[in-house]
Amino acid sequence: MSETIIEDGEFSLPVRVYIEDTDAGGIVYYVNYLKFMERARTELMRSQGYAKPAFLADGLMLVVHSAQVNYRQAARLDDALVVTASIAKLARTYLIFRQRVLRHNSVLCEADIKVACVEQDSMKPSALPKAVIAQLSSSLVTPL
Amino acid sequence: MSETIIEDGEFSLPVRVYIEDTDAGGIVYYVNYLKFMERARTELMRSQGYAKPAFLADGLMLVVHSAQVNYRQAARLDDALVVTASIAKLARTYLIFRQRVLRHNSVLCEADIKVACVEQDSMKPSALPKAVIAQLSSSLVTPL
Amino acid sequence: MSETIIEDGEFSLPVRVYIEDTDAGGIVYYVNYLKFMERARTELMRSQGYAKPAFLADGLMLVVHSAQVNYRQAARLDDALVVTASIAKLARTYLIFRQRVLRHNSVLCEADIKVACVEQDSMKPSALPKAVIAQLSSSLVTPL
Amino acid sequence: MSETIIEDGEFSLPVRVYIEDTDAGGIVYYVNYLKFMERARTELMRSQGYAKPAFLADGLMLVVHSAQVNYRQAARLDDALVVTASIAKLARTYLIFRQRVLRHNSVLCEADIKVACVEQDSMKPSALPKAVIAQLSSSLVTPL
Repeated sequence: MSETIIEDGEFSLPVRVYIEDTDAGGIVYYVNYLKFMERARTELMRSQGYAKPAFLADGLMLVVHSAQVNYRQAARLDDALVVTASIAKLARTYLIFRQRVLRHNSVLCEADIKVACVEQDSMKPSALPKAVIAQLSSSLVTPL
Repeated sequence: MSETIIEDGEFSLPVRVYIEDTDAGGIVYYVNYLKFMERARTELMRSQGYAKPAFLADGLMLVVHSAQVNYRQAARLDDALVVTASIAKLARTYLIFRQRVLRHNSVLCEADIKVACVEQDSMKPSALPKAVIAQLSSSLVTPL
Repeated sequence: MSETIIEDGEFSLPVRVYIEDTDAGGIVYYVNYLKFMERARTELMRSQGYAKPAFLADGLMLVVHSAQVNYRQAARLDDALVVTASIAKLARTYLIFRQRVLRHNSVLCEADIKVACVEQDSMKPSALPKAVIAQLSSSLVTPL
Repeated sequence: MSETIIEDGEFSLPVRVYIEDTDAGGIVYYVNYLKFMERARTELMRSQGYAKPAFLADGLMLVVHSAQVNYRQAARLDDALVVTASIAKLARTYLIFRQRVLRHNSVLCEADIKVACVEQDSMKPSALPKAVIAQLSSSLVTPL
């Protein structure tokens, strides 16, 4: 039943809430949802064949360029969450991931995360490798 | 010289980058800027007389409602940063903090963080205590 | 093959290394192995029927009393680790977990973690509930 | 008054407890004391002239080899702590730091942390640079 909330083309990763994730308010510390989301982005990329998703190719690195995050309900200790990721936009030098943190059929948190490709040494923007764009285009991007 | 970039009415907190803050990319892990920003918000509130800023009054708790974060340059291990916070909006049930992470005269990261007042038990929205609004209005909010 | 290193009676949990776990040295930040170990302890307890392992019963809480940790090799980004936990000692007010972090057949880190039962309000030591001792004795403790 | 508990030759660093440091038990998450301790070790080294304490010299890195930690009382949100570090042993390839986390005159946590010098690429043990040993010997080590 709880799967009905996962949309077509959305990658999903189960995440358990441990004590390390919580804070003195008794809830998941708000920045930790962003850790959960990065785990889901990483596993989405791994599912596409990238064993080292943060370092897609020699000398290139993926870094977060911007994030818009909305918190709707709080997760708590021992919750069994599902974290989703889908590629909302695939451009020459960046990707935008749309992500959600779910508990059963409730959306606890959602975010758009723009991830840019940069040269590891200079941190300057770089084109994504063409093979990466081809791979992600064919398998993941919802036609808009 | 580096103070010139701090604006009138902006609260600022020095933050040193430790190894705990970095990642395998050799830079500060992107979610950790949000920790730095929460430290600055907390100290801004403490400077206004709130010894326990996250729990402003009995049964009330401040929680992050949404965040818009832009990353412009990366901080690195051992950097001496300055993190700023100012109250961009003060409403009946929430505040919006405008925040920046600076290294010398460069802005590394900036964010608008909307923080809502909720009842601790139910997590339902609650009005901020009137004394809090009065205190913050008089001392912090830039007239718009 | 990699299972051969898991010992009889050892609980094991797979843990993937994400960018959040690493530091600027390119390796897993040393305190994060302790997070991995707590996840394994928590899942060991959950496997024994405890849905909220950190709060075993009303008013009681499990807290770490002491830890002895040895680091032997470094884990790196994207490593697929296995984290083990077994109960080395079960006493009236505490447990000692023996834990290891493995990559294939290599032990990266090992620790003895003493976890005490305390009253949540006073933080004073408390006896473990008898039912907990009975449950853990029957199923987990290696006869010494 | 609270300074009386600091011993001769002990380096000390004030640390404020933020929400990021706490957990759902309402206390500082036990692994985070180790982060506090690393900050104090880093500042001790910085006070000795090392601007990048984790990377003492080209190709060398300091890594934690083992840790023995005892938790005696819990720190809580907004506590003003003092974290100490002193060098208990200075050997050819490693240092042992003795560290404490204090709140007023109470010791909350204490640890011995053995930090080894390794080659960054191979992670193999390396001698500490002689200049480092000379510098630390003259200024920090308590004669035994």
